[in-house]
Amino acid sequence: MNVYERSLKLHKDLRGKYEIRSLVEVKDRDSLSLAYTPGVAQPCKEIAADPSAAYLYTRKWNTVAVVSDGSAVLGLGNIGGLAGLPVMEGKAVLFREFGGIDAIPIVLSGQDTDDIVKAVEMIAPSFGGINLEDIRAPKCFEVEARLKEKLDIPVFHDDQHGTAIVTGVALLYALTLAGKTLAKVRIVICGAGSAGIAICKLLQASGAKHIVLTASRGIVCEGEPWLSVAQAEIAKSTNTERLRGTLADAVRGADGFIGVSAPGQLTKEMVESMAEKPVVFAMANPEPEIYPQDALAAGAFVVGTGRSDFPNQINNVLAFPGVFRGALDVRASDVTEGMKVAAAHALAELVGEDLRPEYVIPSAFDPRVAPAVAKAVAEAARKDGVARLEK
Amino acid sequence: MNVYERSLKLHKDLRGKYEIRSLVEVKDRDSLSLAYTPGVAQPCKEIAADPSAAYLYTRKWNTVAVVSDGSAVLGLGNIGGLAGLPVMEGKAVLFREFGGIDAIPIVLSGQDTDDIVKAVEMIAPSFGGINLEDIRAPKCFEVEARLKEKLDIPVFHDDQHGTAIVTGVALLYALTLAGKTLAKVRIVICGAGSAGIAICKLLQASGAKHIVLTASRGIVCEGEPWLSVAQAEIAKSTNTERLRGTLADAVRGADGFIGVSAPGQLTKEMVESMAEKPVVFAMANPEPEIYPQDALAAGAFVVGTGRSDFPNQINNVLAFPGVFRGALDVRASDVTEGMKVAAAHALAELVGEDLRPEYVIPSAFDPRVAPAVAKAVAEAARKDGVARLEK
Repeated sequence: MNVYERSLKLHKDLRGKYEIRSLVEVKDRDSLSLAYTPGVAQPCKEIAADPSAAYLYTRKWNTVAVVSDGSAVLGLGNIGGLAGLPVMEGKAVLFREFGGIDAIPIVLSGQDTDDIVKAVEMIAPSFGGINLEDIRAPKCFEVEARLKEKLDIPVFHDDQHGTAIVTGVALLYALTLAGKTLAKVRIVICGAGSAGIAICKLLQASGAKHIVLTASRGIVCEGEPWLSVAQAEIAKSTNTERLRGTLADAVRGADGFIGVSAPGQLTKEMVESMAEKPVVFAMANPEPEIYPQDALAAGAFVVGTGRSDFPNQINNVLAFPGVFRGALDVRASDVTEGMKVAAAHALAELVGEDLRPEYVIPSAFDPRVAPAVAKAVAEAARKDGVARLEK
Repeated sequence: MNVYERSLKLHKDLRGKYEIRSLVEVKDRDSLSLAYTPGVAQPCKEIAADPSAAYLYTRKWNTVAVVSDGSAVLGLGNIGGLAGLPVMEGKAVLFREFGGIDAIPIVLSGQDTDDIVKAVEMIAPSFGGINLEDIRAPKCFEVEARLKEKLDIPVFHDDQHGTAIVTGVALLYALTLAGKTLAKVRIVICGAGSAGIAICKLLQASGAKHIVLTASRGIVCEGEPWLSVAQAEIAKSTNTERLRGTLADAVRGADGFIGVSAPGQLTKEMVESMAEKPVVFAMANPEPEIYPQDALAAGAFVVGTGRSDFPNQINNVLAFPGVFRGALDVRASDVTEGMKVAAAHALAELVGEDLRPEYVIPSAFDPRVAPAVAKAVAEAARKDGVARLEK
């Protein structure tokens, strides 16, 4: 059986990847009267008098809602909330296993921006944080911005910021190995959706000057009539040579390829046309833009994918569990840019001396990752004034 | 320490009464590739092709959202969603312990009817059922009716139907012990909100002819200017003697008192004024309308409360775990009246030969309760044509 057949069997055997466990025994009248009525009235009264007491008497302090409308699930596209539920359950598993966080999968029946914002706002009191997931661009930008404005708990669109943090670290190290610097190289980002644009912004903030994005209709160039609002905005600071054409045109001579698009977009011939020691991050899920063996055969120097079954997994799991762990630990009211940068720095420090082409990013299973990221994020939250709890 | 102090300490020690447990280990790349990307794409595709496959590959089959806007929490009134969270977590514990169900506490930031309906509709795909909780009348009637109409999963307002089922069974047996029949007795229901009206309707459906409801402003009588829409409706078929006045006027000569109102409403003098062998169910939570020792001292024949620390606990926990267990077991698309009646019959059968004044309703800890209710409910769902799965 291949990985898909085995996964389907696993899902069928489990019928769901999480369960609710009770932390209190109700075995007799006395225990029932403490966990439920009449005793439960007391914590209710305390919270009614002081809402912050919810962090003391309920699970709010450790819960995150994993919210998706299923409009951009993996590389599968707009399959809807219900069909995205296995991914959200998987995410909940990773929150638990890597961050010790109680994450609740919430998939939505509607995809309208106002409806999503309203629904999340309505259910927010149950949670200590909101992780937005697999929501299509440009809708995701507005959903996130409006929720950050409305809510007093961290809101984080993992497909944007998690991906950007981890990709940024991996690219910096891959370029270091190739003897190149970010300011001088030309990077092609294949996929001009939420993840691609977020990666672009983070690389620019880190010093990158020559970035070209490509979408399914071609190179993102100022003036193209098909650009979305978000693409038109990013076009102003990218593709300064006003390149037009296809992905093949974009990657010719490029130093790095970052794929957040669809399976099989990058051919061996395209890799061969890149600059010396090219970096290829083919992160489309589940099928990458090019398989590692093909990229390496075509001369790629460092190769990464989003998959756990190849080296250099450029996976959000390196970021989001630690980001939320750190934010929850200090009852952060927001996720700031400073907290994201702190997460990236913490990841980078862990690569350290072990750096080599097959190791430009820590392993998802490195037990040091989440605690290190959490610590850095909590410190940054305090520095940025969004921490509501001294640890 | 009293029960409130002990409960507060328990809540502080636990910091939440539930947690998310992962059912799958992600200890290496292979297991990650099955539980998450790339393998997880396969169950997603299956569900996209056939939405009912969500019951096979995700936890939907066993999950219930416990949703509240906190507008009528216990006897505490409108304390808001967040302050009601300890109750919803407690309910989730009871769902797990008594029904083997994964229940997720969802407390809402808003209390507007349209907003509640929209929010629940939006998050519904994650769940196999919706348990509405502690939502004030008359709003709760409309919320429930509209959600039942919109959703293809069971929607159950426990404060109405759970309470009615359990109270109905207890009252029938208490009257049997007193040598009276439902059709001839006069019953006073103190509290004309969602629970009181639901109990009234169920008792009428079971043959009761003389019911008087009272609200905080007095006896519910047709023509009173202060009646709500729901109260005006129920006034047509109750209080046929057109009695006006206070609770004291209502209970004089009555055979039964059913309290779903507020602490201390029923005095010893009022109990003394009732008919021979009166039945007193004082179910206000956490403080009953009268304490059992006082009711008994004043001549009550059968006494019940909503509390777990006195005999005859007329508690919804006898109904909702089994109702949802049965509904989930057959993937019911709705909760029908037939399923509620079946639950009541199953409960009644369990009292059987052990009937005595201190035992007119099974114990919440009787392990036969939830399975018996579930079996009866599942059968009724099949009979009513709302079961989507042959068991």
